Amino acid sequence: MTVKKQFYTFLICTLLTLVSCQEKKEIKAVKTGSHPNLILTTKSVSEIKANLGNTPILDKTLKKTIAEVDAALEKGIDVPMPEDMAGGYTHTQHKLNYANMQKAGVLFQLLDDEKYAIFVRDMLLEYAKIFPTFNTHPEPRSYATGKFFWQCLNDSNWLTYTSQAYDCIYSWLPKEQTDYLNKNLFRPYADFLSVENPKYFNRVHNHSTWGNVAVGMIGLVMGDDELINRALYGLDKSNVDLTEKDNDGGFIYDKDGKAGFLANVDSPFSPDGFYTEGPYYQRYAMYPFLIFAAALQNKKPALKIFEYKNGVLIKAVDALLNLTDADGEFFPLNDGQKGMSYFTPSLVSAVNIAYYYGKQDARLLSVAKKQGSVQLDATGLKVAIALKNGEEKPFIKQSMQLSDGSKGDEGGIGILRYNHKDETMALVYKYAAQGLSHGHYDKLSFSMYENGEEVLQDYGLSRFVNVAQKNGGGYLKENKTYAKHTIAHNTITQNETSHFNYDFEAGSKNHPEKYVFNVADENFQMVSAKEKNAYPGTEMHRTFIMIKDESLAKPFIVDICKVASEQKNQYDLPFHYFGQIISTSFKYEVPKTLSILGQKHGYNHIWKEGSGTANAESIQFTWLDNRKFYSLTAATNKNDEIILARIGANDPEFNLRKDPSIIIRKKNTQNTVYASIIESHGTYNPVKEVAHNAYSNFKNIKVLSDDANYTAVKLQFKNGKEKTIILANLEHSKDKKHTINIHNKNYNWVGAYYYK
Amino acid sequence: MTVKKQFYTFLICTLLTLVSCQEKKEIKAVKTGSHPNLILTTKSVSEIKANLGNTPILDKTLKKTIAEVDAALEKGIDVPMPEDMAGGYTHTQHKLNYANMQKAGVLFQLLDDEKYAIFVRDMLLEYAKIFPTFNTHPEPRSYATGKFFWQCLNDSNWLTYTSQAYDCIYSWLPKEQTDYLNKNLFRPYADFLSVENPKYFNRVHNHSTWGNVAVGMIGLVMGDDELINRALYGLDKSNVDLTEKDNDGGFIYDKDGKAGFLANVDSPFSPDGFYTEGPYYQRYAMYPFLIFAAALQNKKPALKIFEYKNGVLIKAVDALLNLTDADGEFFPLNDGQKGMSYFTPSLVSAVNIAYYYGKQDARLLSVAKKQGSVQLDATGLKVAIALKNGEEKPFIKQSMQLSDGSKGDEGGIGILRYNHKDETMALVYKYAAQGLSHGHYDKLSFSMYENGEEVLQDYGLSRFVNVAQKNGGGYLKENKTYAKHTIAHNTITQNETSHFNYDFEAGSKNHPEKYVFNVADENFQMVSAKEKNAYPGTEMHRTFIMIKDESLAKPFIVDICKVASEQKNQYDLPFHYFGQIISTSFKYEVPKTLSILGQKHGYNHIWKEGSGTANAESIQFTWLDNRKFYSLTAATNKNDEIILARIGANDPEFNLRKDPSIIIRKKNTQNTVYASIIESHGTYNPVKEVAHNAYSNFKNIKVLSDDANYTAVKLQFKNGKEKTIILANLEHSKDKKHTINIHNKNYNWVGAYYYK
Repeated sequence: MTVKKQFYTFLICTLLTLVSCQEKKEIKAVKTGSHPNLILTTKSVSEIKANLGNTPILDKTLKKTIAEVDAALEKGIDVPMPEDMAGGYTHTQHKLNYANMQKAGVLFQLLDDEKYAIFVRDMLLEYAKIFPTFNTHPEPRSYATGKFFWQCLNDSNWLTYTSQAYDCIYSWLPKEQTDYLNKNLFRPYADFLSVENPKYFNRVHNHSTWGNVAVGMIGLVMGDDELINRALYGLDKSNVDLTEKDNDGGFIYDKDGKAGFLANVDSPFSPDGFYTEGPYYQRYAMYPFLIFAAALQNKKPALKIFEYKNGVLIKAVDALLNLTDADGEFFPLNDGQKGMSYFTPSLVSAVNIAYYYGKQDARLLSVAKKQGSVQLDATGLKVAIALKNGEEKPFIKQSMQLSDGSKGDEGGIGILRYNHKDETMALVYKYAAQGLSHGHYDKLSFSMYENGEEVLQDYGLSRFVNVAQKNGGGYLKENKTYAKHTIAHNTITQNETSHFNYDFEAGSKNHPEKYVFNVADENFQMVSAKEKNAYPGTEMHRTFIMIKDESLAKPFIVDICKVASEQKNQYDLPFHYFGQIISTSFKYEVPKTLSILGQKHGYNHIWKEGSGTANAESIQFTWLDNRKFYSLTAATNKNDEIILARIGANDPEFNLRKDPSIIIRKKNTQNTVYASIIESHGTYNPVKEVAHNAYSNFKNIKVLSDDANYTAVKLQFKNGKEKTIILANLEHSKDKKHTINIHNKNYNWVGAYYYK
Repeated sequence: MTVKKQFYTFLICTLLTLVSCQEKKEIKAVKTGSHPNLILTTKSVSEIKANLGNTPILDKTLKKTIAEVDAALEKGIDVPMPEDMAGGYTHTQHKLNYANMQKAGVLFQLLDDEKYAIFVRDMLLEYAKIFPTFNTHPEPRSYATGKFFWQCLNDSNWLTYTSQAYDCIYSWLPKEQTDYLNKNLFRPYADFLSVENPKYFNRVHNHSTWGNVAVGMIGLVMGDDELINRALYGLDKSNVDLTEKDNDGGFIYDKDGKAGFLANVDSPFSPDGFYTEGPYYQRYAMYPFLIFAAALQNKKPALKIFEYKNGVLIKAVDALLNLTDADGEFFPLNDGQKGMSYFTPSLVSAVNIAYYYGKQDARLLSVAKKQGSVQLDATGLKVAIALKNGEEKPFIKQSMQLSDGSKGDEGGIGILRYNHKDETMALVYKYAAQGLSHGHYDKLSFSMYENGEEVLQDYGLSRFVNVAQKNGGGYLKENKTYAKHTIAHNTITQNETSHFNYDFEAGSKNHPEKYVFNVADENFQMVSAKEKNAYPGTEMHRTFIMIKDESLAKPFIVDICKVASEQKNQYDLPFHYFGQIISTSFKYEVPKTLSILGQKHGYNHIWKEGSGTANAESIQFTWLDNRKFYSLTAATNKNDEIILARIGANDPEFNLRKDPSIIIRKKNTQNTVYASIIESHGTYNPVKEVAHNAYSNFKNIKVLSDDANYTAVKLQFKNGKEKTIILANLEHSKDKKHTINIHNKNYNWVGAYYYK
């Protein structure tokens, strides 16, 4: 099954005999010529060497790298014929190979030990040998089947990393051998990933970014301008069908027909550096974006790539670091696997490159310090020296908004944060655009975090990445039947139908509108947005306010969601909590047998564990999770149904997590306001067996009035305090002076909200 | 509702006027007389003072104690009239009061600052004032309703701690005041807890231990020999009904009619120091056992209490520390709340006392170091000095057996452990006796741990201790309807009926028999036991072997459970795992609606999420939990039913955790062998997105033969290796030489098992 290392015996009968046998004897240090000049440069190599033993984090990284690569050398070269899907043996081995080659190339440069160059060379020759012997990977599951991997995407990973290894040994190799490899492996591989797979290469998508970069990187190494231009500007775009879709359900081609690396910088990044697919894929894409940018800066400085689109690539690193919880784990917006964090190597690279090519933001150093390693190049050296000099500043994540859309006018993400000593809270509000093929149907949804723990979750994706037993490590069908649906998120589903009727084209044409983002007062931070297209004829306007009241230890969240429709509907607003129910103010029944909540759009995956009627103007729901007490206090109509739900129905492979939620259902309702308070108010210590502040601080929340112009709610604290919030709902008047009368009381204020 | 501090104004009209008004003016240091002599002594006070500033852990503890008590002084005295259940305001305040008084007493002695003495005195006078004004606590929910608390148990806590505070100020108080307090508060309180509540005081139970100790401690302080004898030997035992039960369902009286402190040492402790109720209650009882023992050693050294029953009290501390996982959390055998650990203050006390009065076991010091605090007395001082001198040794938990029963002949607990660098595994096998009223019906059950995480769980208790919303913090009814039942544990349930038909009296009369405990070979550790009474006419013989094979990174567990019955039955063996199913070798169906698994004995709380037929001689089940891959490989008959189950049915208050299990069901079967392999074989890293060793190392496990004399199983590794295990089943021959033939192959060995 695998092609074992039989290089010298097999190659006797080939054209290469002479070259390779000479090579075997003549391996002397001959690092001549201009290479490396891609990521490492001859200059940076000298500088790093001069600092070896003197920059702890770089020395530590180098030591670890040596151990890894030496272990690989010990094992020997293994270039198997492609066979397996993700997670399988051949897939994993080819991944290991490019990672080890890239590192070995660096070690050759930094340590001047030819064993590393030989390792890279011999492996490349193995690849060159088998490359022409087959067409494509035997598993045709992708819209763009690869060579050594089941999809071109992974082959592009290979070429992006391997280009760096190749650059490191390029000057050391005899010209006959570079000519041979260029002609028999690299140029055909680059052509395969581009001209032979235009649907893969010519998109605006993280896949194509990898493809563009792979072709561009090898082009830079080989000095092949045709490839470089192809990478930057894409293939010819005539004669394409703009409605064609890939196997994720995404459009193949950009709506404006753009393609190439620059288009991939232009289009998915907003001016704030938010990547429309979401943080998980931004994390994945940052490596090719930045490593190619660094290479371009080294070899094509006239392009001024880091200034492109107002320096969006550097901004993107800052945005991405801000899209993490207290543990550095990315918010799983859209398709995102939980647990992925800025400790991933691509973020080590990103942080180093952003520090070096940006404005040496000292906060990045503290992230690098946590990461504990650096990129072995000029950028990592600079970070290592700065860290050695103690220049780092804490990276304190502040409240911020990140616009979405190429021009920044397609909604966005609003993050409200609270930082107090070691305690942090974050509310993440998503009013972003569709997010290409990895987008979820969750307009105006939110999630909430405390100290790195999820309190109210976004389900994330349904996939066990690289766990072969679970659909070869690929997306599970429950991603489409549950995780992407509206009900899997903390936002409103109308008539048990997902936003845009789960139609990708409709979703891609529309986006919510940001209404207000105001965090000037750290004790009253507000973010508000409107969605008018998810359900034709229905408008949703949702506002989150993070309030720190001096009488309470932690801030609480007020969530006001105004719904106005041309007709009567059923509205469901779920809160996806974790842990165990401690108490409810409402009565409910639990069924003797469990049935599904609905027939489609994710409802078919939800068990109805209990339900009751609000029977009051406000309900309260307290739960215990992670040794903390949380409460939801929500204004209700007396006949609102309260559903206690749990994921897990119609899940024959047990792919879904059996997580719970509480759903507030308003039936046969036209216009309404959901108004809720969400609190983290207490703790449980199982060693002391003490429950501290196990009860909500609130008596209730009431909707005082609601019309097109204003929505007013009143909060009643248990300590007797009362607060009124009035929101001005109309764009044209939100900054104006307001005077209104509610229940015979006059309210006067200027701006989007009243709070007293 | 609360009685505020109005001492001087209100007492003017009482007999005490003169004394108290004099007191107010005359508070000069008058620490005369022999007190303290209970826990602190005049000698140890001098020694501690001489070391202040010189023993870091003691200094740190003292500093923390000062901060806590000063904060309490700042708040002022609050002695409310009793009103609330556990977790409620008055309950919590009275708990705070005794804790603060005890600490204030110590601070008065160590710091010579009279403000602490005044605080204790004034609070005691408040208690003395309201004590006679009411009969009992207004909530009559206990079989022994208390005074300031809803149950005598908490009042005994109060008196045990307060005795220490009282002792610290006894010599400082004018005789008139001690006479007053003795007569009006302490003696009547001691009588209330004993003669007025014989059903509470005169038992063998952790409750009574607290009661005995409370009465004994205050007796020692007052020099009241009648109380001391009452504490040590109990009340008169004539005229009691030995079949009477408390509100936990436990017997009120010991079967031999024993009572008093010494009986409570004698009866529930095995000679190895295992406490029959289980670790959670042992932890709770260790404080009164040891604090009273220390007091007796100080005041009645002739009793030689620490040598009583071969020094069982010191052994008990070692046993208890060994009944913890890698994080120091107690195994939740019987009623046990998860998360309780040796970081609880009662274990700080226990470790210090065991170090001082035992043989200065240096391993205890490393536990004390982790605990980070010491008891502020001679024992804590000794620990602090030893720690300062760096004398600690690691407390490495080894495989061990702990006998159960007063004489050590009523079964026990077997723990198999694996320690390798930072990796630990523990298998906890329970073949212990009923365990009094807190016992569960789980003969021959087991649980499994890895690095402090539960892999296969014991459900523990169903209770949210001190969470008022959940039944006042008390036991939930699901404790009796689910948690105590057999099906809630990893052991066999016959005919959907719990062991002993869930009959406490039958359970209490019987216990399993230990068969083999052999850990001489660390690569082949074995524990085996038999149960013949749980189901009349059915014998169960279960053996666990922890095998470390040189070809595998971690040990695996072989679980062989032989069942022989006089008739055909249905047998269910569940494995209560956590996390998500990754793959199954068997086909199964998931229902469209969920129904309960059975009608009673915990089955009514379980949803049947899926079921299939083994349809093979061996099944395999792989799951992912805590980023680790685990597999169960089990020998099956082709028509065995495999049930995928989840807790949660008939749970109207959502009191139960919705945890999953896999159940192997054998229907219409008389004699059978369950043989399984349990492995922790792989890891998942969500940052690297790498699944390492995601597949089991085993092909299958087969039962080769089974009869009354021998049971033989064969393990097939995926690496081609095969191993045969033969167990000698009969007591009389287990140490003998064996020669048998299975499928035409001869096996010869000596001892209880063959493995090759």
